[in-house]
Amino acid sequence: MPVLHQMPLSGNCYKVRLTAKQLGISLTLRDYPEFGGATRTPEFLAKNPNGRVPLLEWEDGRVLPESNAIIWHLAGGSRLVPDESWSRAEALSWMFFEQYSHERYVAVARFYLAHAPKDELKKREHLVCEWHAKGNAALAVMEDHLRKRDWFAGARYSVGDIALFGYTHCAEEGGFNLGNYPAITRWIERVREQPAHISLSAR
Amino acid sequence: MPVLHQMPLSGNCYKVRLTAKQLGISLTLRDYPEFGGATRTPEFLAKNPNGRVPLLEWEDGRVLPESNAIIWHLAGGSRLVPDESWSRAEALSWMFFEQYSHERYVAVARFYLAHAPKDELKKREHLVCEWHAKGNAALAVMEDHLRKRDWFAGARYSVGDIALFGYTHCAEEGGFNLGNYPAITRWIERVREQPAHISLSAR
Repeated sequence: MPVLHQMPLSGNCYKVRLTAKQLGISLTLRDYPEFGGATRTPEFLAKNPNGRVPLLEWEDGRVLPESNAIIWHLAGGSRLVPDESWSRAEALSWMFFEQYSHERYVAVARFYLAHAPKDELKKREHLVCEWHAKGNAALAVMEDHLRKRDWFAGARYSVGDIALFGYTHCAEEGGFNLGNYPAITRWIERVREQPAHISLSAR
Repeated sequence: MPVLHQMPLSGNCYKVRLTAKQLGISLTLRDYPEFGGATRTPEFLAKNPNGRVPLLEWEDGRVLPESNAIIWHLAGGSRLVPDESWSRAEALSWMFFEQYSHERYVAVARFYLAHAPKDELKKREHLVCEWHAKGNAALAVMEDHLRKRDWFAGARYSVGDIALFGYTHCAEEGGFNLGNYPAITRWIERVREQPAHISLSAR
């Protein structure tokens, strides 16, 4: 059974747990604390020199970092990856958008405002305004899309939706007001209605 | 012929030009200046609400943003995308690494130190140290991989290499010393020896 090296609070790790659950893939979870550099030890860096989770490790020793690459790989050939070339391109485009324009503001604001020790937030207080401005800009791009379309790629739920759901559904923990985004709010409900959906706190 | 909305100096746009050239795909280039908000006009935002280039636009009006999604899509089924599932996963993993852990430091340092108006750099001088520390950390992760392997995914040159080449080969413009990375330096030479390679300044 593959081992998912992960942090329980991480939306990036949640994407992998959710995808695996919806595909019926069993994972062994190996938890690391969110604070204190647990993924910067020599032992962990030997597995992933970039020092990050999620990291999926197979029994033969192969490892794969990067949440969106992991879920794309796990879901290959399943209903969660669009079978049409253009829809696959759309899904990947939204997944790169998520990592470049969304996660680094929406997830980071949630981490420091809701979960990190107060002194860690204090060191970064001058950044909160930028996190909120750029995170809201990313949410506005999603809202624009979801006013016209039910899903991010093609005509159904896919790994593109899972990638964006990871940190969007809990964005209010980071001080974002999802009440300003009615199309996103309805999409969150649609995602939650998918078969075998699990919440971020489920294992 | 598809139109590539692009900025000439951008490594992200160069990835698309290089991939298209190596696949024999002709593109019409529509240039935008690097400064002054040319991709934040209502006309451009109607095409890409995220206000970024590269953006590839087909004759039927379909548009695709995000450099790595564009090159993955253009190269689908070609020798530039690994045909084996695990190697495809490796390529995508490195492409997400590039956008999350590399571009935002290596490319940003190059942009402000070598190309932006001096007053724009002045506003961000307090960030240069972080760009260099985190950019060097990303280069060290690449160096570690390239000590053991010739290419980023599978046994040959792929879109994974193109994605990382975009900003790595010109990292010295951002104040990074590639002399500290002999395996990267040899890989840059291997990439340059690939058939139909073009430089960043070629159109």
